[in-house]
Amino acid sequence: MKATFLFSSPDQPGLVARLSGFFFERGINIVDASNHTDAWAEGGARFFMRLVVDLTTPASTRKDLESAFAKAIAEPLSGTWSVGYDDVMPRVAILVTKESACLYDLALRREQGELRCDIACVLSNHAALERVAESFRLPFFVLPVTQDTKREQEQKMLELLKQHHVDLVVLARYMQILSEHFLTAAPPVINIHHGFLPAFQGAKPYHQAHTRGVKLIGATAHYATKDLDQGPIIEQDVARVRHDMGPDELVRVGRDVERVVLARAVRAHLERRILVEGRRTIVL
Amino acid sequence: MKATFLFSSPDQPGLVARLSGFFFERGINIVDASNHTDAWAEGGARFFMRLVVDLTTPASTRKDLESAFAKAIAEPLSGTWSVGYDDVMPRVAILVTKESACLYDLALRREQGELRCDIACVLSNHAALERVAESFRLPFFVLPVTQDTKREQEQKMLELLKQHHVDLVVLARYMQILSEHFLTAAPPVINIHHGFLPAFQGAKPYHQAHTRGVKLIGATAHYATKDLDQGPIIEQDVARVRHDMGPDELVRVGRDVERVVLARAVRAHLERRILVEGRRTIVL
Amino acid sequence: MKATFLFSSPDQPGLVARLSGFFFERGINIVDASNHTDAWAEGGARFFMRLVVDLTTPASTRKDLESAFAKAIAEPLSGTWSVGYDDVMPRVAILVTKESACLYDLALRREQGELRCDIACVLSNHAALERVAESFRLPFFVLPVTQDTKREQEQKMLELLKQHHVDLVVLARYMQILSEHFLTAAPPVINIHHGFLPAFQGAKPYHQAHTRGVKLIGATAHYATKDLDQGPIIEQDVARVRHDMGPDELVRVGRDVERVVLARAVRAHLERRILVEGRRTIVL
Amino acid sequence: MKATFLFSSPDQPGLVARLSGFFFERGINIVDASNHTDAWAEGGARFFMRLVVDLTTPASTRKDLESAFAKAIAEPLSGTWSVGYDDVMPRVAILVTKESACLYDLALRREQGELRCDIACVLSNHAALERVAESFRLPFFVLPVTQDTKREQEQKMLELLKQHHVDLVVLARYMQILSEHFLTAAPPVINIHHGFLPAFQGAKPYHQAHTRGVKLIGATAHYATKDLDQGPIIEQDVARVRHDMGPDELVRVGRDVERVVLARAVRAHLERRILVEGRRTIVL
Repeated sequence: MKATFLFSSPDQPGLVARLSGFFFERGINIVDASNHTDAWAEGGARFFMRLVVDLTTPASTRKDLESAFAKAIAEPLSGTWSVGYDDVMPRVAILVTKESACLYDLALRREQGELRCDIACVLSNHAALERVAESFRLPFFVLPVTQDTKREQEQKMLELLKQHHVDLVVLARYMQILSEHFLTAAPPVINIHHGFLPAFQGAKPYHQAHTRGVKLIGATAHYATKDLDQGPIIEQDVARVRHDMGPDELVRVGRDVERVVLARAVRAHLERRILVEGRRTIVL
Repeated sequence: MKATFLFSSPDQPGLVARLSGFFFERGINIVDASNHTDAWAEGGARFFMRLVVDLTTPASTRKDLESAFAKAIAEPLSGTWSVGYDDVMPRVAILVTKESACLYDLALRREQGELRCDIACVLSNHAALERVAESFRLPFFVLPVTQDTKREQEQKMLELLKQHHVDLVVLARYMQILSEHFLTAAPPVINIHHGFLPAFQGAKPYHQAHTRGVKLIGATAHYATKDLDQGPIIEQDVARVRHDMGPDELVRVGRDVERVVLARAVRAHLERRILVEGRRTIVL
Repeated sequence: MKATFLFSSPDQPGLVARLSGFFFERGINIVDASNHTDAWAEGGARFFMRLVVDLTTPASTRKDLESAFAKAIAEPLSGTWSVGYDDVMPRVAILVTKESACLYDLALRREQGELRCDIACVLSNHAALERVAESFRLPFFVLPVTQDTKREQEQKMLELLKQHHVDLVVLARYMQILSEHFLTAAPPVINIHHGFLPAFQGAKPYHQAHTRGVKLIGATAHYATKDLDQGPIIEQDVARVRHDMGPDELVRVGRDVERVVLARAVRAHLERRILVEGRRTIVL
Repeated sequence: MKATFLFSSPDQPGLVARLSGFFFERGINIVDASNHTDAWAEGGARFFMRLVVDLTTPASTRKDLESAFAKAIAEPLSGTWSVGYDDVMPRVAILVTKESACLYDLALRREQGELRCDIACVLSNHAALERVAESFRLPFFVLPVTQDTKREQEQKMLELLKQHHVDLVVLARYMQILSEHFLTAAPPVINIHHGFLPAFQGAKPYHQAHTRGVKLIGATAHYATKDLDQGPIIEQDVARVRHDMGPDELVRVGRDVERVVLARAVRAHLERRILVEGRRTIVL
C-alpha cells in the first residue's frame, strides 16, 4: 500500500530534509523521492517534490496524515500539494470522435496493465466508435454537438463525468473545441495534438506540415486550457518523413507518434509524476 | 570519373525510360538513378530525377554531352537541369560570427573526407574565430557590419565569393541577416537555424523553446531566401530535453543537433541530391 | 491498376535503361522506379530494381507480359524476379500465442487501410487470443503444440495456410520454434524478435538486456530461416531505457517498439519493397 | 561553492530522511537530490543517492564534514561514498591513436565550457594527432607500443598520469588493449566502443554490422575493465543506416554517434552522476 505526494512551494533551504523528515518521524518509509528546484518559475525559484511512501502499516488514518502534512509542511511553507493512494484506482473518461487508434491503444494498454486506471466511460460526438468501446466492454455515450446544442451537451458530459466519478479526461482525437466553462468544471483534461506544437497549431496540422516541407512530424500531449493548443506540454515526440510522403502518409506516420505520446502522458499523470508550473510541466 | 545530373520537368509518361535511354544510347553506364513524381507540386505533378553516370571513357566532350542533353531531353520536356562532375571540386565559403562549433565541425569533416569540397574561405563579421580558421589553414576575412556599412560590406563579400570561385555559401551561425540583394547575387546559401522550424522563428529560439516548455528541441538547415527562416527545409533533427534544463542547457544540447543537421545538409547539397520544389526540397 | 516488379541480377552496364526501356517500348508508363547496385553481394556486385508500372490500359495479357519480361530481360541477364498486381490482395496468416499487442496492432492497421492485405486467418498454439480475433471477425484456429505433436501440428498449419491461400506468414510473438521443414514448405515468414539483434538472441532478451545494463532496447523484424534469429533483418528500432526500469518495464517499453517495427516490416513486404541478398535485405 | 556526494548502501527504511537530515542538522542546504533503490542489485536491494549541497558558508572544514559523514552515515549503514568539490577541477587524460574526431570533440566541448575539467594531457601510441593537441595547447606524449614494449610503456603512462594528477582517463579511440595491471593502477577509464554493445564486440564492429545487415548502428561508452568490451555501460546511442551504405559509410555515420555518446558519458562522470552496480550503471 503506497501513497504518492506531490508538493510545490517557493524555494528555501532545507526543504528536502523537511519533507523527508516529516515521514521519517512518523516511521513511514520513503520508497521513492525526487525533487527539482526551478530557477525559471514565474514567481521566483520554486521547489517541486514527489514522494512515494509506504503505508502498509500505517500509524494513523489517512485523514490524520493528510491533516498533519497540511499543518506541519504545506501551510508554513505556503505549499500546494496533493496525495493519491495506490488502492484508489483513478477513473478515466475517454472522449473520441471517429478515429479509433488512440482509443484502441488506451483500452489495450489498460488491459495489459500498463495504465493503472479504470476506463469509466467513452464519450463521443459521433457513433462511429461504439463497436470498439463495446469490444472492450466500456460504457459508450453519444452526444452529438452542433453550434446550438454545444452548451447543453457539454453540461450533459459534465454530469456523466460526475456520475462516473471521473478523475481524468483524455481527449483521444476528440474533434470538438471544449468551452472554458467545461474545462473549468471538469477534472484535468489531457489532449493529444497531432502536430509538433507550437509549430502547427489549429486544424489540419499534417497538411500544414506537408506544405511547409518539414522533415520531421510530431505529436504533443498537453493539458487542455481555455487557450487552444497553448496548455502545458506533457510529452512530445517526432517521426522522420520523406519528400515522397503526401499528407495522407503523414497522417499514417503521425498516428503512431500520437498514440505513443498520448499513452506516455496519461501514464505519467496516473503515476502522479506531473506538476504544472505556469505554461511548463515538471515531470518527476 | 562520374557526372551527376539533376533534372525536373512536368510529369508525363515514359520519363524514366527516356532519361535512362539517353545515356544508354551513348554507351554511358548509369551508376545510380533515383526519381520521384511529386503530386503536390505547385504547377501540377512534377517529375524529379537524379542520375549518376560513368564518364571514365567518354565518347564525347562534356560540352557536347551537355548540349545533346539539353536538346534531346530538357528542351522537349520543358525541364530544368544541372550537372556536376566529380573532378570539379565544389568550393565552399563559410560565414561565421563568434560560435565555433559548426565551423570546427565542417572543417573537420572536410579533413576527414566526409565532405567532398574545398573550403575556399571563412568570412566573419567578427575576429573571434580567426584562430580556428588558422588552425585549419583556411583564409579568414573579417568584415564587421554596422547598419551603415551593411550594404558596402555585403558588396565586398560578394567580391570575395567571386574571387574565391565559391559555389556554395554556408551560414554556420552567422548572426547577420543577409539582404535580398546579396542572396540574389550569391551562390546558393545554406543556413542553420537553431530551432525546429517553423516552431521558433526569429531570435533566441532556445529561450522561446524554454518558455514554451517543449520536450524536444531541434535545428533546421534550409536554403536562405529573402523571407527570413522561410526557405526550403533541407534537413531537421531534434533532441530530448528535460524540465531541469535551463536555456543554457538547451543551447548546449542544441549545438550538437545544429552541427549534425548542418553537416548532413551541406553533404546532401555537395552530393547533388537536393532539388527545390516551391517551399519544399526533394532529397534524392 | 498497377504492377510491381522486383528484379535482381549480376551487375553490368545499362541495366536501368534496359529495364525501363522494356516497359517504355510496350507503352507502359513507369510510375515509380528505384534501384541499387550492391558492391558487397556474395557473388560479386549485384543489381536490384523495383519498378511500379501502370497497367490501366494493358496492351497484352499479364501472362504475355510476364513471359516477355522473362525472355527479354530475366533470362539473358541471369536475373531473378517476381511481380505483384494491385488487384490481387495479398493474404496474410498471423501466428500468435498469448500476447495480444502485435495482433491488435496488425488487425487495426489493416482496418485503417495502412496494410493492403487480407488477414486470412489467425493461428495459435493457445486459445488466449480467440476473443481478439473474434472482435475483428478473423478466423481463429488453435493448434496446441507439444514435443510429440509438433510435426503433426505443423503439418496441419501448412494445410490451413494452403486452404486459406496465404501469401505471407507473420509471427506476431508466436512462442514456438518452427521446424526447417515448415519454413521450407510455407510462404515467406516474418518474425518479430524482441531484442536488438544480434545483441540478444534466444529467450528472454529483455532480461538479458537488463542484466547487461544496456541503455537502449530494441526489436528486430526479420525473415525467419532455419537458423534461429539469424534471418535477414528487415527493420529495427530502439527505445531508451533508464536504470530504474526493471525487466518488466523493459517488456512494456519494448512492446511499443516491437509492434511498430513489425508493422513497418510487414508493410514493406506487402508493398513489395524488399529484396534479400544473402543475410541482408535491400529495401527499395 | 558546492559539493556533490555519491552514496550507496544496502537498502533499509529511512535512508532519504537520514541522509538529507545529516546536512539539514548542520545548516547545509541541499541544492539537488536524487536517489534510486535498485531491486536487482547483486547482493539484494541497494540504495543509491546523489546529493549536491551548498558549502558557500561552511560551518566546518571539509575534513571535518567528511569525517562526520563517514561516522554518522556511511559506517553505520555499511555504505560506500565519495565527494567532489566544485572548486577542485577534475583533470582528464585523453588517450588516442590516429582518429581525431573524438579528441577534437572533447577539446572543443571543454573550451566551450560544456565539460568542467582540465585536459591534463593527451597520450598516444602514434604521432598522428600531435597537431590537433597543439592547436588546443594540450601537452602531447607519444608512447609507441609493440608487443615487447607494452608493459614498459604502460608503466610510463601510469607515471605520466600521476605526474599530471589525472582523475579520469578517456580512451578516445585508443587502439590498444590495456592490461589488467594498468586498469587496476590507473584512475577510472572510460572507453568508447564503436558498436552497439553487446552486439558487436571485438574488432571492426562496423564491418561486422554491415555483414549482418543491421538497420541501426550504435556506439557505447563504458568503464573499461579487464574483460574487454564488458565493462558497465554508461551511455549508448544509435543511428539509422540504409542498405546502400557500405562499411565506410557506417564508419562515417558511426563517428557522429561515437563522439556524442562519449561526450555525454564523460560529462555524466565529471558531474558525478554515475554509480556502478555490478555490470550496470545508475545515472542519477
